[in-house]
This record gives sequence, C-alpha cells and structure tokens, in this order.
Amino acid sequence: MWEKGVANSIIMKELEDASSQDYHFCNGKVISSMCTKPLDIAQEAHSRFIESNLGNAGLYPGTLDLEKQVIEEIGQLLNGSNIAGGILSGGTEANITALWIARNITGKKKVIFPKSAHFSFHKACDILAMESVMVELNDNYTIDIEQVEKEIDDDLCAIVGIAGTTELGAVDDIQALADLLPEKAFLHVDAAFGGFVLPFIEDAPKYDFSIPAVSSMTSDPHKMGMATIPSGALLVRNRDWIRNIHKEAPYLDMIGQLSALSGTRSSAAVAATYAAMRSLGRDGYVNLVKECMDITGYALEKARKLGLEPVMEPLMNILCLYVPEPRKIQKELSKKGWKVSVAQNPESLRLVIMPHVTRQSIDGVFAELEALL
Amino acid sequence: MWEKGVANSIIMKELEDASSQDYHFCNGKVISSMCTKPLDIAQEAHSRFIESNLGNAGLYPGTLDLEKQVIEEIGQLLNGSNIAGGILSGGTEANITALWIARNITGKKKVIFPKSAHFSFHKACDILAMESVMVELNDNYTIDIEQVEKEIDDDLCAIVGIAGTTELGAVDDIQALADLLPEKAFLHVDAAFGGFVLPFIEDAPKYDFSIPAVSSMTSDPHKMGMATIPSGALLVRNRDWIRNIHKEAPYLDMIGQLSALSGTRSSAAVAATYAAMRSLGRDGYVNLVKECMDITGYALEKARKLGLEPVMEPLMNILCLYVPEPRKIQKELSKKGWKVSVAQNPESLRLVIMPHVTRQSIDGVFAELEALL
Repeated sequence: MWEKGVANSIIMKELEDASSQDYHFCNGKVISSMCTKPLDIAQEAHSRFIESNLGNAGLYPGTLDLEKQVIEEIGQLLNGSNIAGGILSGGTEANITALWIARNITGKKKVIFPKSAHFSFHKACDILAMESVMVELNDNYTIDIEQVEKEIDDDLCAIVGIAGTTELGAVDDIQALADLLPEKAFLHVDAAFGGFVLPFIEDAPKYDFSIPAVSSMTSDPHKMGMATIPSGALLVRNRDWIRNIHKEAPYLDMIGQLSALSGTRSSAAVAATYAAMRSLGRDGYVNLVKECMDITGYALEKARKLGLEPVMEPLMNILCLYVPEPRKIQKELSKKGWKVSVAQNPESLRLVIMPHVTRQSIDGVFAELEALL
Repeated sequence: MWEKGVANSIIMKELEDASSQDYHFCNGKVISSMCTKPLDIAQEAHSRFIESNLGNAGLYPGTLDLEKQVIEEIGQLLNGSNIAGGILSGGTEANITALWIARNITGKKKVIFPKSAHFSFHKACDILAMESVMVELNDNYTIDIEQVEKEIDDDLCAIVGIAGTTELGAVDDIQALADLLPEKAFLHVDAAFGGFVLPFIEDAPKYDFSIPAVSSMTSDPHKMGMATIPSGALLVRNRDWIRNIHKEAPYLDMIGQLSALSGTRSSAAVAATYAAMRSLGRDGYVNLVKECMDITGYALEKARKLGLEPVMEPLMNILCLYVPEPRKIQKELSKKGWKVSVAQNPESLRLVIMPHVTRQSIDGVFAELEALL
C-alpha cells in the first residue's frame, strides 16, 4: 500500500486527471444515461448531510424525519395514501427488496415479468433463489397479458409490471395485470424511471397505487427526480410488510433499523432528495418534464428529416430509432464524444433526453449522425 | 405532493433544522458509531465526483481507474496479491455478495458463522435462501473451533470468520478455520471494521489473505478508512468468481458492469476513498490507529479507577465495560447528549473510540458515568 501520505494539492491534481477522463452531464454530450446533473440545492444538501447514516437512525432523527416526509410525498405523487417505504441505494436495491418481501410473505418463488424488465429482476431472482418467468411483449412493447395469464399458477409469488421500460420508456398495462392477480400474490411496479416522469405528463396511463392491487413500487429520485445518487425509493402499501424482513441489530442506537438490504446507508441523498423535491414542487417537475418531452419531440422531428423512424412514439423522454448497424454508429459517435446507447429489443439507437440534454445537444448529435448515415 | 417549489433559502433553513436534530461527530459526544467524520479531502473528492456512477462504468473510466487503484491498495494492505473486487455500499452489501458468490459457485447452502457475526449474515442467509449455522463463542469471545468442526458436512458452502467483531472487536482464529476448511468450501473474513485497524497494529493476529484458504474479505473504507459513506470494499481472491454473478445489461455503455448487488452506484465515495488513502498512506493510518488505541487505553484506565472492568482487554478501539444496568445507563447518558451503545454478548456498555473521540470526550463521558454509578 501507499506508504506515505501525499499533499492535498497532489491528490486534487490526480483527481482532476481522473475526472477529465469521465464524461460529465454539463457538456451535454451524454445522451445515454438515466441520471443527470442534480440540482445545485440537492448537491448542497448532500454535502451538508455527508455523515448521515440511516442505517443507524438513532443518531439521525432529523434525517429520518426528512426521509418520512420524502416517502410521504412520493407516495402521494404515486396516488397512494399512508404508503410506507424508504430511500435505498437505487432501483436495483428497491426491486430486490420488493421481491424479498413478496417471497417471505407468500412463501412462494415464481416471479413473472416482461422481457423488457430491468436486468435487476434477473439479479433479484438469482440472489433470492426465485424462479423467473420472462414473458414476451406485445406489438406495443408492453407485457403480453395473455401470456401472463397462462403462466399464473399456485406457485406464483409476484407479477412485475414496468412503468417506463429502461430501453423504450413503454408502460405495461398495470390494470390488466391487477385484474389477473391471484388474491395473495404481489404486484410490484417498477417505475424507477417513470416515477418522476409519468405523474407530470397529461393522459399518462394508470400505473400506480390508484390501482388497489399494486403492492409496491420503485421510483428513483436520482433519475428524473433531480436528486443525487444514491436515492432510489421503495414504496410499499402495507407498513407491516417491511417488518417481515427486519433483522435486529442490538448494538445500534435505535432498535428497529429501517429494514433495507444495506446496513450503513448513504443518507446524504435523503436530504438531497428532500431539497430537490422542495425546490421544484409539482409545478417545477411539470415544467422540467415538459421541456424534456419538447426536446424529445424536437429530436424525433430531426430524425424523421433524416428518414429515421422511431421504434415507438415516445411516451416518455426516451427515443429509440431504427438505424442501420446501431452498434457501429454508437461507436463512431463515441469517437466524437457523443454517448448514446443501443437498445436490444428491438435493436435500435437509444437516446435518453434528460434535463442536461439541450436542443444544441440534439443539433450536435444529429449533425454527426447525418454525416455518418 | 408539494405543489410549488420554494426558495433555496427556505430549504436550507429547513435542512438546518433537521440537521440540528442529528448528532454530529465533530461535537465528540458520539461514542457509539463505527463511522466518523471523513477527512476534508475525502469530502472534497466526494463532492467533485458527485455524478459518478460505476453502475454505468463506460461513462466513468477515470473513476473506474481510481477504483482499481483503491482495490489494489486495499488488497495489498490485506496481504493479498492481484486481488479482485469493488467498492460497494458497505459491509452488508459486501457480505451478502460474498455469500452470493460462494452459494452460486459451490451450489451449496450451509453457512457457519460465530454468534458474534454482524447481523448482515442473518440478513444474507434470509435473502440468499441459505442455511445459517450460528456457532457459540469461546471464553475469549471468538468462534469455538471445535463446534465449527462438528458442523462441517457435505452441505457446507462457507465458513465466516470475523476480524474485529462489531460488539467487542475480537478477532476469530482465521488460521484454525482455514485448517478445517473442506477443499471446495469458501472462507469469508468480515473485516468491515478491522480492515483499516488491524493492518496498523503491531502483533495483530493473522486474519487476512496471507492465509491461502481465505477466499474473500470485507473491509469498509467508510469506517476507520476515513472515507465518506457509502464505501465498503469486497475483496475476492479469484477474479473469475465475480463473473459468476454477472448479469448482462445491454443498454449500458460498457458491456460487463462490475458485478455488484446494486445497479447505480454512488461512486463519489470511490474518489473519497482514494483521497483518504492517498492522504494518509500507511504511516498516516498507523498514527491514527495508535491515537485511537491510546485513547482507548486512557478510557480503560478511567474505567478501572471507577472500579469498572472490561469484557476483554481491547484489541482494537472498542471498549466494552461491565456496568450495572447498561441500558439504563445508556439512556441516562443519552439525556445528557452522550451516545454510547450496549453490547449483548455479554451485556455491557460499549464505547467505540473513533478518531472524532478525544481525551476530552472520554473525560466528559466518564464524569457523567461516575455521577450515575
């Protein structure tokens, strides 16, 4: 190991060198990430609460109160009342925890989810020793309800629906899943991305706690919520369910650690989430999402002028375009500093129009794209 | 949800109110936490890398390089060579991931760990659907090797040894566990706390990768490593084992996300860990640990003057004292703003002498303690 400490000036220089190799949202060329530059006030809140650790909540009653408020507000945003939950490290931990709860309560192991589900569900089923049943999609890229119906049997633990798929931003028919759900099975909705988009879009499909069968939801403040990483909310309809996965830690200052997969929790992001939500309010998010959707529309227009068609009309601020050899195009764009991604189902060039992506960004990437085609 | 955004000045006022309810390390009255005030340079690094997310490592090659360096250095510190691993959210995620790897590779489910193991092992066995076998302790509060031997059978997946128990800071006889270990079983060492203490103490027992049978280790930079939360290192001897739990995420910018339980990762703490380790170097940690041990000795002297005996002579900077009615004393101290905790095995008053705990802190808490006794 490094034997002797070095001066801060040397360390900062080394960190600057490392940082210069990273991509930064502020340059507007990252059009592939579902994260974005957090609000300044969120970053300030994060720094202010850098020590905070709700894994040892007895020391942090102030932060715990912020978490309660944030969960209450997100619960309301998702049309629930008296919703329980917590801020975890992200959508993956929230999804794993939701299935962990469902498995322990039902005592069953079969999970049905669409092919479009985030890869965290494969991870969750591996970790939790559950059986994953992946269902094909309809023509509109949402879960095939008839196939789901065929897979339902006595082993069913949970059905998962996606409100804003990672690749396309499609929203499964949650009401149809609810209508099929056997009495004791769970219905988990992954709105990791959609949870801070769909509530602010007019005529969005119904996907949330307004559907009584929805048991739990994932919604990530560190994506479109404008908070810092790590902030992924798990919301559950019944507070008692959380107790089910609780483990005692007698040495902690508060008996009854909020049950989560993690022990120590980076709760600076709880304060950051509070700050972002207070700063924007519903009105602020409506404007933010409208601007992202406008720019998404602008990008789609540009694409059509180049003769490119979208996989589907964007419902959210994700645009997937059919292009010849998308991997090759992704690589070429990357050489010019533009980061876009490639969706697999179907194979297409994927642009995520986050708040740091401006019209100028779109002009820039489409100019490159035109030259390449 | 909050309808309208509010001004930053109002938000900062609300956050200050919340923060004022939290305990802060800088006031020296938290003698119960295994975390501490991170180094200033670590906090600065954290802020500088606030966007960084090694869950999408293709965008963060600079941060990824910092992580590689940090893992290499921690591996060396633990007497390993070419050790693989990553910075996860903390010891719990690292412990769960270690057992996840062991379960998937061995195809077996029985985990033997001491009664003194962190509660994350109970959590891990629940999540991973593994069978936990909890073994009693010797008179010296380490795992009873004879009992371990009796529990070994063909179902054995892994044995867990603790290098610095949460309650007492005891170190299991890892070499004895290694001597018993059947060929294909795993030996995981939880040095979440000890990993940044034991390497800097003379004559510490052997507990690390210098024992060839040790498969994986947990060591938390956000505890005695002086980094920010969330930084828990998982170190594994064989790089291929990590691939075993890998899941593809085709939409990400880098095929082959570093396998972890989490998806999005708060990698600001990777930069903070780098900064803390570079800033201190081995020499700096030696001094830091020496000071903590000196103050622990100082506290023990004070205790003996009050006629209080320790549960064991402190091996690390944790001091557990036999006192009458420890829970009551804890409560009374809490009323005066002093946060100490209570160990269960055996029941005793527990002080964790982290770098923010000064001689003045010890004078203060023992003055209160004397008044109470």
